[in-house]
Amino acid sequence: MTDDTTGTADGAQASSAGHSRRRFLGGALGAAGVVVGGGAGFGVARATGPDDGSTTTSRPAASVVPFYGSRQAGIATPAQDQLAFAAFDVTAVDPMALQVLLGSWAAAASQMTKGLPVGAVETSPERPPIDTGEATGLNAANLTITVGFGPSLFDDRFGLAERRPAALAPIPALPGDALQKERSGGDLCVQACADDPTVAFHVIRNFARLARGTAVMRWSQLGFGRTSSTSRKQETERNLLGFKDGTNNIKSEYPSEMDSYVWVGNEGDQAWMRGGSYLVARRIRMLIESWDTDYLADQERVFGRVKTSGAPLTGHKEFDPVNLQATRNGKPVIDQNAHIRLASPETNDGQKILRRGYSYTDGIDSDTGLLDAGLFFIAYQKDPRRQFVPIQRKLGSNDLLNEYIRHTGSALFAVPPGLRGPGDWWGKSLFA
Amino acid sequence: MTDDTTGTADGAQASSAGHSRRRFLGGALGAAGVVVGGGAGFGVARATGPDDGSTTTSRPAASVVPFYGSRQAGIATPAQDQLAFAAFDVTAVDPMALQVLLGSWAAAASQMTKGLPVGAVETSPERPPIDTGEATGLNAANLTITVGFGPSLFDDRFGLAERRPAALAPIPALPGDALQKERSGGDLCVQACADDPTVAFHVIRNFARLARGTAVMRWSQLGFGRTSSTSRKQETERNLLGFKDGTNNIKSEYPSEMDSYVWVGNEGDQAWMRGGSYLVARRIRMLIESWDTDYLADQERVFGRVKTSGAPLTGHKEFDPVNLQATRNGKPVIDQNAHIRLASPETNDGQKILRRGYSYTDGIDSDTGLLDAGLFFIAYQKDPRRQFVPIQRKLGSNDLLNEYIRHTGSALFAVPPGLRGPGDWWGKSLFA
Repeated sequence: MTDDTTGTADGAQASSAGHSRRRFLGGALGAAGVVVGGGAGFGVARATGPDDGSTTTSRPAASVVPFYGSRQAGIATPAQDQLAFAAFDVTAVDPMALQVLLGSWAAAASQMTKGLPVGAVETSPERPPIDTGEATGLNAANLTITVGFGPSLFDDRFGLAERRPAALAPIPALPGDALQKERSGGDLCVQACADDPTVAFHVIRNFARLARGTAVMRWSQLGFGRTSSTSRKQETERNLLGFKDGTNNIKSEYPSEMDSYVWVGNEGDQAWMRGGSYLVARRIRMLIESWDTDYLADQERVFGRVKTSGAPLTGHKEFDPVNLQATRNGKPVIDQNAHIRLASPETNDGQKILRRGYSYTDGIDSDTGLLDAGLFFIAYQKDPRRQFVPIQRKLGSNDLLNEYIRHTGSALFAVPPGLRGPGDWWGKSLFA
Repeated sequence: MTDDTTGTADGAQASSAGHSRRRFLGGALGAAGVVVGGGAGFGVARATGPDDGSTTTSRPAASVVPFYGSRQAGIATPAQDQLAFAAFDVTAVDPMALQVLLGSWAAAASQMTKGLPVGAVETSPERPPIDTGEATGLNAANLTITVGFGPSLFDDRFGLAERRPAALAPIPALPGDALQKERSGGDLCVQACADDPTVAFHVIRNFARLARGTAVMRWSQLGFGRTSSTSRKQETERNLLGFKDGTNNIKSEYPSEMDSYVWVGNEGDQAWMRGGSYLVARRIRMLIESWDTDYLADQERVFGRVKTSGAPLTGHKEFDPVNLQATRNGKPVIDQNAHIRLASPETNDGQKILRRGYSYTDGIDSDTGLLDAGLFFIAYQKDPRRQFVPIQRKLGSNDLLNEYIRHTGSALFAVPPGLRGPGDWWGKSLFA
């Protein structure tokens, strides 16, 4: 598979060792060598052979989303059921170490997205297993792994300041922000989505492990119950306020919309980002206990939709068009500050974003004794300065929903294009 | 369905209102009236009729676990994929309010376990919806709802001191405990298990809502990736240390084991607990970063099993018997302090427990920057004084695993028998 199979197991453990690093960067296929180097080392395969009565599984057949391609998976991919998201800060000062990390992650991702461990569990009894093992026996479960770079990565540490895209300008303070530093920002992000939560968690845990000595996890977030379908084939799910969310989301079946609003094209100022996108993450706490005491009519006024059907207040079915002009008794049917009005393309210079968020709950808020639950909002777009930022500025000022939500975390990442194959890694051309 | 359908929607909202309370307790079927009172109020059903194009679902057909029965579901039920667990403290001082709460919960549970909302979303525009709505459109997903009573419920508040079973003695301090008060204890518990996380979360959220004015949530925990199969039909899953967990768990296909170790029989000192069980919950943080640096041979020594196959070190396949006597070169093959030795029935006077735990991760531990992840251990048993407590005392003292785990939460609950039908509630005979 590569000319570097001797690197195998050790590379992942000792990515900061100078000789390993040089060898890694020396070969076009070096990244694959860092982690596994062929199938030889898979103790798992041996241990779960046909004579082992313990391996019968009742799980669905493996569903694999291709990892390599011109775009990163996990954006247009129909949203899976579960999310594990993590942001990392790079602690190494050497840009080489950062590239080694990204290469290690890429090789590991190519394995995990096939439902394979990042490396052998059984190599030598006198070594730690390469893979942490908790997902062994589970299938790929439509796993996608999407990686991005935060604005802070382009400071003076790694010589990347000149390569920072203008669109990666830090998100400014927005009306109504209640951001917590410990839930915001980050040099790198990893979005792992799968239909099995263990498979998704396995990614961020092993990425954290591979990062040891180079980067540390800054924050992480689990999500469940995808709240925005990204495909026409998916039913619209509900957020924790009980409303269908993302009815008019961009659907990946419409490539022209994806090109217009999501994928960076030739208009970008940085060639390395062409074919990529920009990810905005916002942790939006919902004050659900308060919401739950609000009258139905008011809840529907806040959103501008019927709660049960998801229809706009000007229609009967979920996908009926939203008529922002309709009036009744001289008043707009959809309130001037209803969420769907303020978020709609018509009131935002035609702009749209691809939402791909998940519900979350993180137990009890110890300050209040209330559930800390809400929406981990993720949106992809071509340029946040023209998309998320102005839309949220409007929402943050006037949205009727503001009474019931708080933005407690915020992060922005440049998500480079997809990886061409083994030996490629995220942003390889960024460092060239 | 009942003679009390006029109570419907309001009852759930106003469970502390005196007249509603009396009416509720007056009729044998009153509990059903508290929440829904028949199918009349289901706006959801109307809104998702066949002419609504938005309701096509790709989800599996509904899987319903019966809620009523002589035992509570969620114990012998084959472990579902997802957990939402919550402990509550009763704030009301009136035992009647507590019973009204339990009746409301019972009626809500009978609905939710059928995949139905706890009550109408659309009743009146000028009222809050009864159901919070986020699970609308999802099916029952094998939902089970299991309720228990903590030792603190039997203090002097509700006149229950004489009814406290001896087996509900608070768990004593155990070796190695690192318990956090805010993750421990509670007057009541709710274990919601389902194959869909939104369905499980929906339970604890709506229970919290129904409890308003009567009880407050004390702590909650989400879990994923069940780590102990409770049925021979289930493959043994892995914990976050990468080992198969629960290989020798009690399986519900063996009723005599269930009777010997899990279900309270006539030997109990409190008639109201016959047919019930005792639930011990322990939040066991795993120091996964440290574990991940440990050599394979040492990891296997710690557990006494082969990591990949799950076989005992004295066997070849997962279900091979554990031979604690086997020696090699004069030393025991399974270490004197290996986890499976210290936890085995042979070293615990033949005692066993039914484990039903889940993996968890709650983001980053802000003190250390490490992942706060591990096992939310749940075990059911006939008498914790003879089962969990002595087993854990031994493990806490000597288990090789202790280097890599910390018990950060602990709780004990008496789980009464199942509900006979509408109008019954948990522990009804306890209050009689």
